[in-house]
Amino acid sequence: MKDKDSIPKATIERLPLYYRCLDKLDKFEEVDVVSSKELGGRLGIPPTQVRKDLSYYGEFGRRGVGYNVHDLKKSVGEILGVDRKWQTVLVGAGNLGRALVNYDGFEKMGLDIVGAFDNDLNKIDNRIENLTVRSTKELEETIEEEDVKVGIIAVPAEAAQNVAEKLIEAGVKAIWNFAPTRLYVPDEVAVRNEDLAVGIVSLIYHLSWQEREEQEEEEEN
Amino acid sequence: MKDKDSIPKATIERLPLYYRCLDKLDKFEEVDVVSSKELGGRLGIPPTQVRKDLSYYGEFGRRGVGYNVHDLKKSVGEILGVDRKWQTVLVGAGNLGRALVNYDGFEKMGLDIVGAFDNDLNKIDNRIENLTVRSTKELEETIEEEDVKVGIIAVPAEAAQNVAEKLIEAGVKAIWNFAPTRLYVPDEVAVRNEDLAVGIVSLIYHLSWQEREEQEEEEEN
Repeated sequence: MKDKDSIPKATIERLPLYYRCLDKLDKFEEVDVVSSKELGGRLGIPPTQVRKDLSYYGEFGRRGVGYNVHDLKKSVGEILGVDRKWQTVLVGAGNLGRALVNYDGFEKMGLDIVGAFDNDLNKIDNRIENLTVRSTKELEETIEEEDVKVGIIAVPAEAAQNVAEKLIEAGVKAIWNFAPTRLYVPDEVAVRNEDLAVGIVSLIYHLSWQEREEQEEEEEN
Repeated sequence: MKDKDSIPKATIERLPLYYRCLDKLDKFEEVDVVSSKELGGRLGIPPTQVRKDLSYYGEFGRRGVGYNVHDLKKSVGEILGVDRKWQTVLVGAGNLGRALVNYDGFEKMGLDIVGAFDNDLNKIDNRIENLTVRSTKELEETIEEEDVKVGIIAVPAEAAQNVAEKLIEAGVKAIWNFAPTRLYVPDEVAVRNEDLAVGIVSLIYHLSWQEREEQEEEEEN
């Protein structure tokens, strides 16, 4: 296996796609062997890229035969760390927080949400799936008792930094941030920002260029 | 301005960050001039990168002086296409759909959600903010009447492709897909996949390598 830092970010981002596809092949389609061509084809990724991505982590599959679906799924799962449970807390029990708790597929990815927290008295004691929303005052205790390593932040931008600091102080090592703001955290804490406004703007950008090009073409004709 | 296709994707993804920061400086902090150093500093982006990103689109600001906040905001807004309204429909009025309608900042980015749709009778006629959830049977009509160009898909994976096809047939040109599945769409339609499971897995991946490295260190000592 290569050194972690030498593996391209794009490769790392494709691993969960491979994992989910292999899981589907294994569990629902009962396929035993898959070629890089077929695996790539289902995901819109060229087969050479599939082979290159996997080669960073070892030698899987046999040339001319393909990959054993079950074994490759297991290996990719181990690489990703989704073969174990990661205790997780959610802070912010608004619509987005509720959506995240309900989101299919987190459990499959190893995420185990053990607590949902909010400081809004109207939300405390509400149910989300099998969780009861608790006061953020109980956050630290839960993180310590349940050995929580992952924190999801779904609070307004102005509250996010404070929440992040509380999470880290109590022992959280990875933060998934849905608040539209940058977090300042120590180097050893991993942060993933899901900035929804960035997503929509990149789409609008493409749309707006497309319209501009169409207009220019019309003017030329 | 450079050719659209020669501009790096990473640059395009940073533009909304610049825009939001400039908007804040302009509206709330009443700052007139900002240097690339200050702008970059607020976003964790090196000043050389800020200057390079902006240089793809023209000459802004004056060496040694900085950028006029209001003018630069206006220019970046035009580049992004957020200076106008984009009529948008949401399909899927579950928690995630509700969260998206409620999300701060979409309006600022030009997104105008004109309709929310679902095929679940329990959700039809429910209110989300100032919208009433309608039957997906009315989707096509709304898209045509309101000249809708953007569609947000927040339905389960197995329903997403069908919804995408309906949207496109009725005239949608850009799809923001929250369903954890790949969509097959014509080349001229822009798709942005917000695959939440990919987000969390990349975080778990880092966490799991970190723990592995710590364990190895412990074993060595």
